[in-house]
Amino acid sequence: MQEKGNISIHTENIFPIIKKFLYSDHEIFLRELVSNAVDASQKIKRLASIGEYNGDLGELKVKVSFDKEAKTITISDSGLGMTAEEIKKYINQIAFSGATEFVEKYKDKGDEKAIIGHFGLGFYSAFMVAGQVEINTKSYQENTESARWICDGSTEFEISAGNRETRGTDITLYIAEDSEEFLDELRIKQILEKYCKFLPIEIEFQDKIVNNPAPIWAKSPSELSDEDYLKFYEELYPFAEKPLFWIHLNVDYPFNLTGILYFPKVKNELQLQREKIQLYSRQVFITDEVKDVVPEFLMLLHGVIDSPDIPLNVSRSFLQADSNVKKINTYITKKVADKLGDLFKSDRQGFEEKFENIGIFVKYGMISDEKFYDRAKDYCLVQNTDGKLFTLNEYAEFVQANQKDKNDDVIYLYSSDVLAQDGFIQSAKKRGYDVLKLDSVLDNHFINMLEQKIVKTHLKRVDADTIEKLIDNGIVIETILSEEDKNTIKGIFEEVISDKSKSVVLEAMPVDELPAVITQNEFMRRMTDMSRVGGGGMGMFGAMPNNYIVSVNANHPSVSKILQTSEAADQKKLAKQIYDLALLSQNMLTGAELTAFIQRTAVAL
Amino acid sequence: MQEKGNISIHTENIFPIIKKFLYSDHEIFLRELVSNAVDASQKIKRLASIGEYNGDLGELKVKVSFDKEAKTITISDSGLGMTAEEIKKYINQIAFSGATEFVEKYKDKGDEKAIIGHFGLGFYSAFMVAGQVEINTKSYQENTESARWICDGSTEFEISAGNRETRGTDITLYIAEDSEEFLDELRIKQILEKYCKFLPIEIEFQDKIVNNPAPIWAKSPSELSDEDYLKFYEELYPFAEKPLFWIHLNVDYPFNLTGILYFPKVKNELQLQREKIQLYSRQVFITDEVKDVVPEFLMLLHGVIDSPDIPLNVSRSFLQADSNVKKINTYITKKVADKLGDLFKSDRQGFEEKFENIGIFVKYGMISDEKFYDRAKDYCLVQNTDGKLFTLNEYAEFVQANQKDKNDDVIYLYSSDVLAQDGFIQSAKKRGYDVLKLDSVLDNHFINMLEQKIVKTHLKRVDADTIEKLIDNGIVIETILSEEDKNTIKGIFEEVISDKSKSVVLEAMPVDELPAVITQNEFMRRMTDMSRVGGGGMGMFGAMPNNYIVSVNANHPSVSKILQTSEAADQKKLAKQIYDLALLSQNMLTGAELTAFIQRTAVAL
Repeated sequence: MQEKGNISIHTENIFPIIKKFLYSDHEIFLRELVSNAVDASQKIKRLASIGEYNGDLGELKVKVSFDKEAKTITISDSGLGMTAEEIKKYINQIAFSGATEFVEKYKDKGDEKAIIGHFGLGFYSAFMVAGQVEINTKSYQENTESARWICDGSTEFEISAGNRETRGTDITLYIAEDSEEFLDELRIKQILEKYCKFLPIEIEFQDKIVNNPAPIWAKSPSELSDEDYLKFYEELYPFAEKPLFWIHLNVDYPFNLTGILYFPKVKNELQLQREKIQLYSRQVFITDEVKDVVPEFLMLLHGVIDSPDIPLNVSRSFLQADSNVKKINTYITKKVADKLGDLFKSDRQGFEEKFENIGIFVKYGMISDEKFYDRAKDYCLVQNTDGKLFTLNEYAEFVQANQKDKNDDVIYLYSSDVLAQDGFIQSAKKRGYDVLKLDSVLDNHFINMLEQKIVKTHLKRVDADTIEKLIDNGIVIETILSEEDKNTIKGIFEEVISDKSKSVVLEAMPVDELPAVITQNEFMRRMTDMSRVGGGGMGMFGAMPNNYIVSVNANHPSVSKILQTSEAADQKKLAKQIYDLALLSQNMLTGAELTAFIQRTAVAL
Repeated sequence: MQEKGNISIHTENIFPIIKKFLYSDHEIFLRELVSNAVDASQKIKRLASIGEYNGDLGELKVKVSFDKEAKTITISDSGLGMTAEEIKKYINQIAFSGATEFVEKYKDKGDEKAIIGHFGLGFYSAFMVAGQVEINTKSYQENTESARWICDGSTEFEISAGNRETRGTDITLYIAEDSEEFLDELRIKQILEKYCKFLPIEIEFQDKIVNNPAPIWAKSPSELSDEDYLKFYEELYPFAEKPLFWIHLNVDYPFNLTGILYFPKVKNELQLQREKIQLYSRQVFITDEVKDVVPEFLMLLHGVIDSPDIPLNVSRSFLQADSNVKKINTYITKKVADKLGDLFKSDRQGFEEKFENIGIFVKYGMISDEKFYDRAKDYCLVQNTDGKLFTLNEYAEFVQANQKDKNDDVIYLYSSDVLAQDGFIQSAKKRGYDVLKLDSVLDNHFINMLEQKIVKTHLKRVDADTIEKLIDNGIVIETILSEEDKNTIKGIFEEVISDKSKSVVLEAMPVDELPAVITQNEFMRRMTDMSRVGGGGMGMFGAMPNNYIVSVNANHPSVSKILQTSEAADQKKLAKQIYDLALLSQNMLTGAELTAFIQRTAVAL
């Protein structure tokens, strides 16, 4: 026994699957049918241009209409049309794509890219929403009859003479009961606007042209003014603020891609992703899920990408592995990095003004893409709490002399919240230190990245230690208190505070510092933050508790005053007020404790 | 011209589409092949049970193995097996589902539900990852030969004598280059655990059984103990905390559904959705996207739902319109509401203890589902700032007497942050008012709902007004200041505050209140909050600014003291300190202002 043969497909079994399950979104039917109509119109134009059709092209509009009473939607074009024979060939035999054959036949004669059809399955998506579909068509070829084709969704069809007198095709859908939602002006308009907005042939619905057949991304940058780009942006995102600048993408080899990416004004992370990049294939809208095609950090950009080389309707894992997709991704990254570099070099001031908005792209890119880091490290800016901007090299230079510790390591100080950490920032500035403003969610990762990339440099949050220890130059301040006095005071504070998460130390600080300061060790705080977001695999053990150090300033007069107070109750009262002020300075005095502090203070006014 | 005919499908064109595009996730191939193997094993069991197979059933395991060197994955079963003729019928003719025929044939003889296959397309999903597929099989029927089928992914196949000597089927996949990721122990294990964890026949991989063939949801609740339910929960979510309680779903008509829904401990919204409800169809995992099947507010639950009546692989809009899905949704809502009602009635104390965790379900359900509201309004609890719990009726009764305003409307006071609003809460309590704790994100909506549902009742945040006006009973407190004095003081405060968003008023308040209080009108605050989240269509105009009222207590001694102070600078100093304390009490003293306040106060210690 040995036998060869061919796998066969049972049409009556697979037909329902094609009809119902091929596309996950039923509204796609309109995209498919209008694309087909546009296709047919493009084809007749093409035939005319190469002299194979000599008739009058006329107005090549595609018209979409609906009749709520009759429950029909009709798509009409003045394209190529079909003879009865062609219907049999292209419609009755599913997955025999007309477009493939057409492209094959005419590919040497010019631009074959304009043809949309892929598998020849699109037409059958009509049955996702229609109980019955009718084709009424007349071919462009001379001496041919018009033809009508009717199919009720079974595999049986009927073909007969049609009544169309001019070249072109009408497709009429008799909408099924479960799809009557599509018999609605607003719904049809929305679908057309979503998928057909930039199809290359005019589309008319309710006496209005609903598309822009010549979107600017298909034009050459040399033909376009800034105004054109801004106008197009408004067309894409009617209510959005003006973009900062844009990049026109245009590549033929090794893949085909056109598009325009806009840099929006982004003030905070919450605003992100509201408008998305739209992905087109030959001016047909495909999706706004451009994951994998566009590097993740550039998903924050807006605009359009049009490429026939991105595989459609395929799974995520397939997209990730596709070599064209990888190349496109790399190309976009490089284009963006270069554009930013050019802006920085040609107009530093303009770049600085824009950095508030583009900083998030740049930092995100540097964190997530090594190649982008290499390009962007020369123009990525950091801002200090005075609002001054530096490149990374400039900043290293700026703090080099004044912020070295006893090990010759440079310490960058930063604030994650300039309002809440104001007291600490003021202390640091009094010592001539500079403080960076790194207050976005992204900055935690940015800080880690900087420490890894810049040698002999550490970053410390401005409240990570008392001012003298923040940048430890090895100089020890003398204290006016004896060891015994220190222990007495420590004991009083420990009694007042009575909290295991806060350890009390007596420290010799300058007299102009507060009588007590609460700090949180940089390393421990980072660990705690990490455990809180569940990173580092520590989430399983629950969040780590915060631990604080209460540094009592041994040189402060009000601390000495405690020793001079005779009553134990009064000593504690004073220590409590000193501790409350330290808590306040760290935004840690809340609830009943804060209410009591306010009432105490109000009474004493 | 009139002609009828049949639509035909070009196999060689549609085959690549079936192979590559039918499933969006390539890993599905393993689910399909293992399901088929389980199916074949179920079938032989079934035949034995009705006496149509008299041989030894033996061990009906399905074995999955792989060979990294040879680049193969093999799925073996001891099921029904196939003859060469059956291969030709079931494999070579795509979409001729064997399961359909089998069910048809044996449906009068018992439980036809145990057969998984739907379209007969599942087998071809093998070609999503394999370049070549080989079947080696021997039928259960006596006097039949074993057979081997090989296909390299073209539509051509080869069939010959096989070498399998025992009943059953081996499917061997020669994995294609772009799918070698699947030749990995961990990957295979993960896929099996995801999709096959509860298939009804034992599945062996690497000498271990990876599934639980008899999950408890398929059993009758009367056979099960609490321990069984808890054990199963742990099996589903190994690292999760114990659930609070559960509901066993079991319905035959008008749709088929079994399942177990667990109520997890939910402390805050961030935790939600980490574990998801899993949807099965006859013990095959389908998805954990149960949107539309389960009411949105119950998506917070955990557990499994198994129903052959939920259409698989279909679009969202289809699911929404499906009448079975709607019925299932309603059924689940009712079951959950009844279960909660039973718990409340049978064990009020236990219900109260659980309410911290289930409150979010109850409130979310009441807000989003009118029918659920009607059921839950009798047992939904609210908690006051003392931790006491009330039903809605009990609470109405509780505050009835003491919290009526001059219009006879009852005012519920609430705090959205008991720590931050502590001063205001203390003031309200001093007046004998009760304050509710409504501090979750959901509570904004819950508050709106309560106001709509409960007549002549309004909710006011505890800092929405000064204490005397919060519940305005019409009694006016006398002030010790003349109009002229009031104007003088108002002028001084306005000069000190100098902020358009804060208006100063002088008010006669009790002496034990603070010298100044900052409040924000309830209605205005809600509008501002709404504009911030972009609700109510106001997002377009940008967020509204916050507006505050600074109420200076005309009866407070330290306010009188301002008038007794002669130097203008000293008057301002005192007013500033009073204002700073009011800001502090509202957590509005920050940045440099707070630093200055702390330093001023520290120096004066």
